[in-house]
Parts: sequence; structure tokens; C-alpha cells
Amino acid sequence: MKTRDHFLMKAWYIAALSTEVDGAQLFHRKLLGKSVLIYRQADGTAVALHDRCPHRFAPLSMGTRHGDEVACPYHALRFNAQGQCTHNPHGTGHIPKAAQVDTFALVERHGFLWIWMDASEPDLTLLPDYSPLDIGHENAVAYTYMQLPVNYELIIDNVMDLSHIDHVHGEIITTRGKLSPIVPQLRETEKNVSARWEWSQQPAMMIFAPFLPRPEDEARQFFDITWSAPANIQLTVAAVQDSDRFDDALDQYDLHSCTPADAFSTHYFFATRRNHVVEDADYNAAKIAGMHAAFEDEDGPLVKAVQQEMGDAEFFSLNPVLMSNDVAPVKVRKMLDRMIRAERAEA
Amino acid sequence: MKTRDHFLMKAWYIAALSTEVDGAQLFHRKLLGKSVLIYRQADGTAVALHDRCPHRFAPLSMGTRHGDEVACPYHALRFNAQGQCTHNPHGTGHIPKAAQVDTFALVERHGFLWIWMDASEPDLTLLPDYSPLDIGHENAVAYTYMQLPVNYELIIDNVMDLSHIDHVHGEIITTRGKLSPIVPQLRETEKNVSARWEWSQQPAMMIFAPFLPRPEDEARQFFDITWSAPANIQLTVAAVQDSDRFDDALDQYDLHSCTPADAFSTHYFFATRRNHVVEDADYNAAKIAGMHAAFEDEDGPLVKAVQQEMGDAEFFSLNPVLMSNDVAPVKVRKMLDRMIRAERAEA
Amino acid sequence: MKTRDHFLMKAWYIAALSTEVDGAQLFHRKLLGKSVLIYRQADGTAVALHDRCPHRFAPLSMGTRHGDEVACPYHALRFNAQGQCTHNPHGTGHIPKAAQVDTFALVERHGFLWIWMDASEPDLTLLPDYSPLDIGHENAVAYTYMQLPVNYELIIDNVMDLSHIDHVHGEIITTRGKLSPIVPQLRETEKNVSARWEWSQQPAMMIFAPFLPRPEDEARQFFDITWSAPANIQLTVAAVQDSDRFDDALDQYDLHSCTPADAFSTHYFFATRRNHVVEDADYNAAKIAGMHAAFEDEDGPLVKAVQQEMGDAEFFSLNPVLMSNDVAPVKVRKMLDRMIRAERAEA
Repeated sequence: MKTRDHFLMKAWYIAALSTEVDGAQLFHRKLLGKSVLIYRQADGTAVALHDRCPHRFAPLSMGTRHGDEVACPYHALRFNAQGQCTHNPHGTGHIPKAAQVDTFALVERHGFLWIWMDASEPDLTLLPDYSPLDIGHENAVAYTYMQLPVNYELIIDNVMDLSHIDHVHGEIITTRGKLSPIVPQLRETEKNVSARWEWSQQPAMMIFAPFLPRPEDEARQFFDITWSAPANIQLTVAAVQDSDRFDDALDQYDLHSCTPADAFSTHYFFATRRNHVVEDADYNAAKIAGMHAAFEDEDGPLVKAVQQEMGDAEFFSLNPVLMSNDVAPVKVRKMLDRMIRAERAEA
Repeated sequence: MKTRDHFLMKAWYIAALSTEVDGAQLFHRKLLGKSVLIYRQADGTAVALHDRCPHRFAPLSMGTRHGDEVACPYHALRFNAQGQCTHNPHGTGHIPKAAQVDTFALVERHGFLWIWMDASEPDLTLLPDYSPLDIGHENAVAYTYMQLPVNYELIIDNVMDLSHIDHVHGEIITTRGKLSPIVPQLRETEKNVSARWEWSQQPAMMIFAPFLPRPEDEARQFFDITWSAPANIQLTVAAVQDSDRFDDALDQYDLHSCTPADAFSTHYFFATRRNHVVEDADYNAAKIAGMHAAFEDEDGPLVKAVQQEMGDAEFFSLNPVLMSNDVAPVKVRKMLDRMIRAERAEA
Repeated sequence: MKTRDHFLMKAWYIAALSTEVDGAQLFHRKLLGKSVLIYRQADGTAVALHDRCPHRFAPLSMGTRHGDEVACPYHALRFNAQGQCTHNPHGTGHIPKAAQVDTFALVERHGFLWIWMDASEPDLTLLPDYSPLDIGHENAVAYTYMQLPVNYELIIDNVMDLSHIDHVHGEIITTRGKLSPIVPQLRETEKNVSARWEWSQQPAMMIFAPFLPRPEDEARQFFDITWSAPANIQLTVAAVQDSDRFDDALDQYDLHSCTPADAFSTHYFFATRRNHVVEDADYNAAKIAGMHAAFEDEDGPLVKAVQQEMGDAEFFSLNPVLMSNDVAPVKVRKMLDRMIRAERAEA
């Protein structure tokens, strides 16, 4: 059985970080196998169009801006943000009815541009709520992005089983072998899979230790993660000393989100908001760089090697030996598979 | 529907510029999916053989010259220009009857080496007549070559719709937006598709303006192009001032010709002859360099991007929105398709 | 007909030179399409495991050594040299019955690590005897390795028809055109194909000439080669002066052996032992470097070009013109094909 290259379509995917698309740019990204053009209108609103002129299939992102419109680089057909052709310099200037570019609903929220690529009416109620990212000091939140040559479900697997941190990651977020013995508490709803680990370690992860009362001492920590379709994982991690509860803990709220470029290439987006040292821009920059490096240098080579070893075989067809730490990622794989099958059965 | 990798076979294709093959060389090029060896005999006549030893399939172009014969680099079977094995150093020296390399008719004309790759008798009446290239001063004609990773029909499309010059090209040949509003005059015969644009622009294209009576002023110009199968386009472009007719115009006669290496890689040959500043070798060199750069840097990125966006889909299967400027390229695509179908129906 | 990507399975293949795997390393190599991990236990014994954790398919070679065991880099499952999981840091530590890595029999002999990749009982009687490599001074034997992007049978073809030396190789081993006229004496048994050439040349090959009584004079030489399945060729080459027989000849005993990485990529191993200047470490190093360069720079480009020209077509399907010098390689191709068919018929 082969890795599928069909994806959950009735869903919002992150197309880009808000900061990736400035006011002048014609931004191109391949999403769910399609070329997408994203740009901001004069009022700042970002829009998304199929990055393909309907005339001779040149990418509009190689063209030029004319106010809120885009001219094709090849024969200068001009399109507005609704994908309508507004100007045809050829012949009489008659605009063929079919001269229309597909558009995609695009919503900017929580520092990301979210795209709905299905032909159906976009369902705003499905837009995930990541408002914790929005609340607080601007130097206590940060975003990053990387592209990995792997199927997106391998990245979801990675985050849904945080026991890998014991073995894969260095000092910045190490859990010192404490997670693996824990069977995470699972919570499952119709649309979410959550898992929670609580443990003590000495010292705490380096993202917390320096800000705890006694940096060298043991701390109580937790991870709490919630997946929602298609590929969004909210993660809270906290550390506390001198308490049995996490009320006054140092904490961090992260979002991991994946958007397939195609079956074997994934856009990986990450955001993080913390409740401590909230005003320090230098610390903020250094920390997101450290987190980025951990994903790129520690998770990255592993998931790439796994992908190479799996080739195009579907995960379960290879008969993986599954263990207590796999309960959350396996639940996610199965729920997502059910959703994709249901969607395709409807169509 | 996929882009076809079968080509019109009963036709002459350009294999190389005459200047690409010197007297000593064993020149290799992939043409219509086949490895071809081209070399010149002592009398200067160029010949073409399948670049594959029939013994163990080593490319003869990696071998050595022995007068007008070629020895295979692997086991030294020697072949003459008729593809016959003339020497077998092995065993008794007996030459197996099957030790025969396919040859292809090769004709040198108009500064090009033309090849007939079909197994049928080459039809010299199908050799196109580009004699205008031959007539005039040696410093008024120039040739260039480039390879593009695209299907050859995308390059024919590009040249058959010259309205793209309005939008794609810089000062050297810009038409300042004047071509797009014109519906070109079409002429169609059984074997040719022609198109003609006439317009005025100010100033003229930079290839003409400096040599006109008043370089800054408006000029009357025309383009006249004629396609003949499989992928040859003759183009005349002219500019004149102080006249209603083009009798004493500055003009330039060009040949654009494509030879598929395979379905997604094309050899693009270009020649140009002009009727002005005919003795200036420096101008000649600078001008062909400028034309080459225009194709490579301006058309090249676009047709490559179009190819990437189309993948292996056949052009019409993607439902292009066609306009008045597409009449000539569409006629060419359809005529070529008919010719290929007819040829295959016969076979 | 396509080049097959199934191989003779009930056979020993060389996995690595003994010297490629030191005591600390987790050595990875792709063999017969499979990822293989090789490492040495504390007692020096080398073992081979499928280089794929049965949990989530990470390569164990990216993991860490724990004595004679290996921990997976991803979630730290630990496996012993028998492929049994010995430690699971997750949950209760229960070890799933299926947590088992395939192992492959590995035997170290004659300076190589030999692997049996079939699931059947390894048959030690099939281990080839290359003991001549073991006998003599340590400075009279040398090994080398290279990887070539070609099907392994093209390399066997190359060695089984030594007439190519006349045409392909430079001074170090040139046979000065003397081999091609000879029809080699063939000997065929149920499992071997042998060929022998005897000839005189002046001067002798450069690997012998300086050590003969009269370096500039003619010498009598022979090549004797024996293939055994799947891809092992023993080769003796000798030179003598002042004698009708080879009793006191300078000689060299070589092993050429190929192991497919996959259908179009081959590990090529070579060993050589000589009976002269046996104590000279500098000469030994220079000579193996020269032999390696001859294969890499002279045979390499040719077999690569042949592979490119053949694409994925099966050799006989291209109707090669075969000659007296092809008798040995053709016999080998046919015998190997019979063995593979017989093995698959059984399965």
C-alpha cells in the first residue's frame, strides 16, 4: 500500500507565516500539490490564487503588481484578487468568460495565513482557535518555518509522541529520560486527540531552568498536547518548583502545524508564546533560533532517514511494532484516515 | 492526457550548428530520444550514426578516429561512415553480419547540419529552404544554440505568438505594447502557417533604431513568420521611416528551429541575417550575444516555469483559455498533431 | 524486457572490506535493495542486522552503541546482535514479541565480510575459497572498493572478457592488443565458468616488467579467470621470461567481486596478492592505488556510459552482436540466469 497523495480537503491549512508575505511581494508556495500565489492588497488583506494563468499556465507570481491586481508575466492578462480577468491587452480587449483564476479563501489569524483549498464553501467554524498566541507581550511570542522532504504524518507522529525528546533532543528541551516510562493520559473527542505527561526532572528543561527559583534543582513539569485535523498540534509545556500544582508555573504554549507541499514534502510551521521573560527581545530571538535548530538538526535528520527507509510504503503496511508511547500518534493516524475516507466517500 | 514522446519522424531536424562539429571531433547529441554521433570525414562531409556500438552498447563518440572511421572505445570494433564494421580485432577477425550501426542521412545547409532520423528514405524535397541566411556579407549573419528543459512545442508556441514580446522582452527587441492589440493576418497552406503583424512604434526596436534616419522617431515595422513542420519558424522583421512601404526597410531574417532531445528537453537553434551594418564584425558579435541573452534570460525562465506548472500534461487537456493572439500557435499545434497522427496511422 | 531487480538470494555476497568496519562504528550499506547495519562486537566478531528499527523504521546505524548492543536513535529501543530487543524504555518496559530486527549471517574471511541475505539457512559450503589472498607477506596483498552506478552484470561482463584490456587500459596493465586475437580456452563446470588466455608481449605489463630479468624484452603471460555465482571472479595473471612454462613466473592473484546495492548501483570489491616484491609497503600502496585508478578512470566511465545507453533494458533484449570474446561473459550471464530462475521456481 502506497503513501497517499490525497489529503483532507475540507480543512484550513497554514499557507505561510504572516511575516513571510510583505506588502509588495507576489509570494509562491506549493500547497497540497498545487501552486498557490499569495499577496497582500493595499489594505493589507492577503489573498490566495491558483498560481497559474488560465491562458498558457505561466505562474502569476513571476508577474507584476498593478495595485491590487496581478499581470501575467507572459502575455499580461491582468487578474484581480477575485481571480477575474480585468484586462486583456490582446485583440479587441474582449475578456473571455473562462479567463478566471481559481481563488482560495485565505484568513489571517494568530500570525499565520490559513488557506481553504477545497472547492466547497470554506467553513470558518473549522478555523482552529490559537488565540493564546495573540495575548501578551510582543517579545514573548515567536514563529518559525522549515520545509522537510517527508510525508507530513511523520512530523505529526513525531510531535504526538513526545517520548522521543528523551532520546533525540539536547539540553534546550531535554526531558532526561523521564517521559518514556510514562504512559501519557489520553483524551479523545470526536475531533481531537490529546495526551498529557507529568513528571519531575533535575534540572528542568533549559528553556525553564534559569527562570525557576532554584535553577539547579528538580522541577515538576508537564506536557499537554492536542491534535486537531488535519495537522495542527497545540502544545503546552510548564515547569514549577515549590508547588504541587501548575498555577504559577513557567509555561510555554506552542503550535506545531504541517501543510503538505505534496505527499513527500511538508511545510512545517511553529509558533511559541511564553509567560516569562516576556519583554526581552534578545532572549526571544535566541530562543526561537534554538527551537528551530532543535527541529532542523535533531528531529529533521531522523524523520528524513525514516522517510527514506519507508520509501513510498504506507506506514501500517510495514507492520510497525507499536508500544505504549504510540497510542496518541496511532489514534491521530486513524482519526485522520477516517476523516479523509469519509470526505472521499461523500465526493 | 500526457505530453507525447513520439515526434514527426519523416522530417528534417537540425542536429547541430555547422560550427559545433569541427574536423577532429566525435560529436554527441541526443536527438528524438536517440544518441547520435556526428563527425566530419576528411573531405569535410559530416555524417551521423547511432551513437551506440552494436556489440556492447558503448557510445562510439567516446572512441577514437581512424581516418574516416571510428573505433569503439570498449573493444575496438571499427565502423565506417556507412555504419559498416570494417575491422574486428577479436578472434579470427571475422566481421559478424549484424555488426552494423544505424546511420542517419545528414545534410549540411544554411549553416546547420540537418538530420533525417526515420528509417524511411530521406526526402530531400522536405529540406526547408533557408537560403536567405546564405546570401550576403559574413558579418551580417550569426548563429546561436541553447538547450531548454521544456517540450519543444512550448518554444514553437512562444515564437508563433509574437505578442509576448510586448510583455517579456527588454529594449533590444521590445515592441512597446503595440503587437498585442493587433490580430495578426494569418495565411495557411497545406504545410505552412504564417502570421503577419504591422505596426508603428516610437522609437523602433533597438536592433533598428540607431540605423534609421531619425533614431528617436516613430517607425513603421512588421513581423512576418512562417512555420513549417516539424519545428521551423522563419521570421522577418523590418523597420522603415519616410515611407509607406517596406521596400527599403532595415530588415532581419531569422530562423528559429527546435529539435527535441526527448519529450521534456529541447535543442533550440537560432540564426539571423540582416541587411544593414553588414560588415561590422563587432556589432555582429554583440548583437547575437544580445539576442541569445534575450531568449535565455527572458523567454527561458518563462517557458521553463510553464513546463513545470504543466508537468507531463498535454497542453489542450489543461483547457487553456485561448485568445486572438493564439490563433497561429494553435493552428500549428493542430497541423503538427494531424501530421504525426497521419504518419503513425500509416506505420 | 527490463533489467531485473531480483538477485540470486541463496549466496554469499561481500558486504564490506574487513577494514571498512572498525570496532566503534555502526556501518551502513545498502545491499540487494536492503539497508544493512554492520558492526563489530567487543570480541571483534562482525554482525549484520536489517538497518531499520521495527518500531518506526529509523536506521539503527544512526543510533548509539551500548556494548554489543545498539540503541535506536529515535526512541531508544535497544537490540542485541541477534536482533532481539533487550531494552524498552517506554511504559512498563515490556518488550513486544515482534520487537525483533532481522539479522543476516555474516562471515569474515579473506579480508572481507560476507553476508547471506536470504531468509533460508546460510550454507557455509557455498562460501567461496579465496585463501590465496591470506597466504604470504602482509605487504604483498591489498584491497580496494568503489561504488559504480551500473547493474552488476555489466561489471562481470567487463572482467569476464579481458580482451577489453587491449583497448581500455593504460600502461599499468596494458596487453598491447595481444588478447583480442586469442579465443580464450573455456572451461565450464556445473557452477563455474573459466577462461584462459596465453600470449607474449613486449614489454610485459608494467606490473611485471620491472621485476623480470630483462624488463624491456618480450615476456610470456597468461590470464586465468574463474567465475562463481553470484558475482565473484578469481583472476590469475602471470609473466615469465626464459621459460616455456609458468612455474617460476611472476604472478598476481586477484579477486573481483560485485554486490548489487540495487538494480542500477553496484559495490565493486577488489583484492590482489602477488608473489614478488612482497615486503615493500610503498610499492604495495602505489600499486593498489594504480589498479584502483585503472578501474575508476578507465573501466568506470565506459560501463557508466553503457548503462546510460541501455537504460533499464535487459541486455539480450537489445540484440547485442556477440563475438568470440563474448563467450565467457555470455556463459556467465546464462548460468546466473538459470540459477536465479531455479531459485525463484523453488520459492
